Amino acid sequence: MARLVMKFGGTSVANIERIRNVALHVKREVEAGNDVAVVVSAMSGKTNELVAWCREAAPLYDPREYDAVVASGELVTAGLLAITLQGMGQPARSWQGWQIPILTDGAHSSARITGIDGAGLLAGFGRGEVAVIAGFQGLHEESGRVTTLGRGGSDTSAVAVAAAIGADRCDIYTDVDGVYTTDPRIVSRARRLDRVSFEEMLEMASLGAKVLQVRSVEVAMVHGVRTYVRSSFDDPANPGSGTLICDEEEILEQQVVTGIAYSRDEAQITLRRVADKPGVAADIFVPLAEANINVDMIIQVVSGDNAYTDITFTVPGADYERARKILDGRRDSLGLTEIEGATDVVKVSAIGVGMRSHAGVAARAFRALADKGINIRAITTSEIKFSVLIDAAYTELAVRTLHTLYGLDKAEG
Amino acid sequence: MARLVMKFGGTSVANIERIRNVALHVKREVEAGNDVAVVVSAMSGKTNELVAWCREAAPLYDPREYDAVVASGELVTAGLLAITLQGMGQPARSWQGWQIPILTDGAHSSARITGIDGAGLLAGFGRGEVAVIAGFQGLHEESGRVTTLGRGGSDTSAVAVAAAIGADRCDIYTDVDGVYTTDPRIVSRARRLDRVSFEEMLEMASLGAKVLQVRSVEVAMVHGVRTYVRSSFDDPANPGSGTLICDEEEILEQQVVTGIAYSRDEAQITLRRVADKPGVAADIFVPLAEANINVDMIIQVVSGDNAYTDITFTVPGADYERARKILDGRRDSLGLTEIEGATDVVKVSAIGVGMRSHAGVAARAFRALADKGINIRAITTSEIKFSVLIDAAYTELAVRTLHTLYGLDKAEG
Repeated sequence: MARLVMKFGGTSVANIERIRNVALHVKREVEAGNDVAVVVSAMSGKTNELVAWCREAAPLYDPREYDAVVASGELVTAGLLAITLQGMGQPARSWQGWQIPILTDGAHSSARITGIDGAGLLAGFGRGEVAVIAGFQGLHEESGRVTTLGRGGSDTSAVAVAAAIGADRCDIYTDVDGVYTTDPRIVSRARRLDRVSFEEMLEMASLGAKVLQVRSVEVAMVHGVRTYVRSSFDDPANPGSGTLICDEEEILEQQVVTGIAYSRDEAQITLRRVADKPGVAADIFVPLAEANINVDMIIQVVSGDNAYTDITFTVPGADYERARKILDGRRDSLGLTEIEGATDVVKVSAIGVGMRSHAGVAARAFRALADKGINIRAITTSEIKFSVLIDAAYTELAVRTLHTLYGLDKAEG
Repeated sequence: MARLVMKFGGTSVANIERIRNVALHVKREVEAGNDVAVVVSAMSGKTNELVAWCREAAPLYDPREYDAVVASGELVTAGLLAITLQGMGQPARSWQGWQIPILTDGAHSSARITGIDGAGLLAGFGRGEVAVIAGFQGLHEESGRVTTLGRGGSDTSAVAVAAAIGADRCDIYTDVDGVYTTDPRIVSRARRLDRVSFEEMLEMASLGAKVLQVRSVEVAMVHGVRTYVRSSFDDPANPGSGTLICDEEEILEQQVVTGIAYSRDEAQITLRRVADKPGVAADIFVPLAEANINVDMIIQVVSGDNAYTDITFTVPGADYERARKILDGRRDSLGLTEIEGATDVVKVSAIGVGMRSHAGVAARAFRALADKGINIRAITTSEIKFSVLIDAAYTELAVRTLHTLYGLDKAEG
């Protein structure tokens, strides 16, 4: 007998037939003797519809109202799953974010969970009830307004609920059957990982793997929530085991590199002939930070005459136009002559805790990419990953090259 | 300067363009110096979609979960209208039922409002904010669950909010421009009423006129809320005045009959040769009442031999099958031999407070209907209305006959 949180995303609850399939997964776990809380997303497409209406109503919408609107989709699926479970003879009740409550800060549309009162859910377990929880949302206690946790926020709802009720594990059901060494649509020989460490998963999610919301992995890591990524399209009577995200210590055979991620959501900006004097970097990057634009890779190259420098950096693709506008407005004060940009770039990353103890891991990649004629525009490294910025046209080639280089290809079928 | 509640139904908020039109109506009233609370329904079609999903999920759904699901549609329109108003420079905020709160009893899916705390709304007025309220819903305080007020419940939300905040008037915007002497689709010479008394409106709504939820008229009458029925499709810059529902004393020229209503949602059940002994009526009608089936017209005719009686009564069309099943289950104990039924019947009613002081009003109708060859299956009368049950095929003829008989036809254009 264990306590369990299960999370199902939008494609898994897209219609009543699929919700019935979800109910069968839940029932299997209850019949195995588990107390179960289920976190659900909105039916696929619903959140996009609600977001589009907000934008149509006013381009600069109040995020408090946006949250009130877009959080409604999850209420529908939570109620429908409770009804479906009851129809199968399984006691269940739905919980809206404010009813539990799931408390958050006031950062509307990307709020962070500050506390969850699990008492109501546990009392329901005592009555034999499955708790069906509307994901993606919370309550800002001071204002009494509904908040949302950002795209993919239901993953974070699930992991945070698991931490709050002391769940033995959190199963994230999705449309893939686990975490892969890289995107199987690009590399047919990608392998499903049985286990991956919190740290690696955090980097993979941050660097473009879309399987989990980054914040959910942080919460899982901080609270040590054993989290499985599993497929909701498995036969409910005979499901696969998925990928376990867990402490590094639980992983016996550690590869040097665990996975290759890529992100197309990148843009590069290059400032040429910037005066090379103290404080110039601050003058450039502080205004971007104040506009909530995350600058990632930064390269500074001193020009021939030493009085000037070229500065290249990347920003998220969605922030590219805004970043250019901010810099254009500061041309004179910064003495900027040329601002160049590129959006047809991609960041390819290799992740693995084994990098800590192995030297020269990245260097091998630079050589392999050069051998394929792939030009590296920028590089960043950290303890357990390195990333290269390259032309988008080489994405697939670069991912496949690194996947093979680090021995990640599965044996031929 | 006045305090005002405005209510807009589903067709008035069916898309963003129409929500913008609603915002213009609201803005007009704010610019005229009023404090405004707006109550909105779900976009037309949305509630039906949600109800259909609940039924598909399980035919016998938990009404608490049903309420959680179907109340979500109003959250969307409330947020979108707030965003739209803000986009026009008009401060506004949305209020969900539980946020105000609008407290109700625990009768899920047809809950009654037990109290509304208007303090938050009034504080918003103090900040120059329009309050945009999700209609149709409330909070059952003991359980903390979301409740709904039944179909058309947003009308009741609006009138109850008006009573709670001491509004000077409540404007119900709908897809018609007021209350008519009868359904204009049946009688082209139907006239719009400038004023109608609470009592008459209550009867008209109860007897089939769909313009307002019955409960909303009760609340308006009890609290003396001056309520206008107006068209949301009027030019926001130059709206019509609609129909005022008010105290009888405010209506100067009172007709004997004010309106003709009809209801197709009727079914007739006849029990033949029931033993004519004390308690038999209770044996028949108590089980129906316990099953929440409203019995309306009842006629008892003693048979020739005096030991038996025929009992005819009507029930709402939606409850017909259930009522027959209940009676079938009691055939032996009640000694029922023949149970007959008919669903192709219609109830036509004439309403007017003038009936109190005029004798023979109904008798004139019986004669006029007989002259047209319309057979009357049952009759009920009360102080300010009478109803006849007739074959559905004669609906239009009967309505037109009575409309003309009581002088309600407008002058030829």
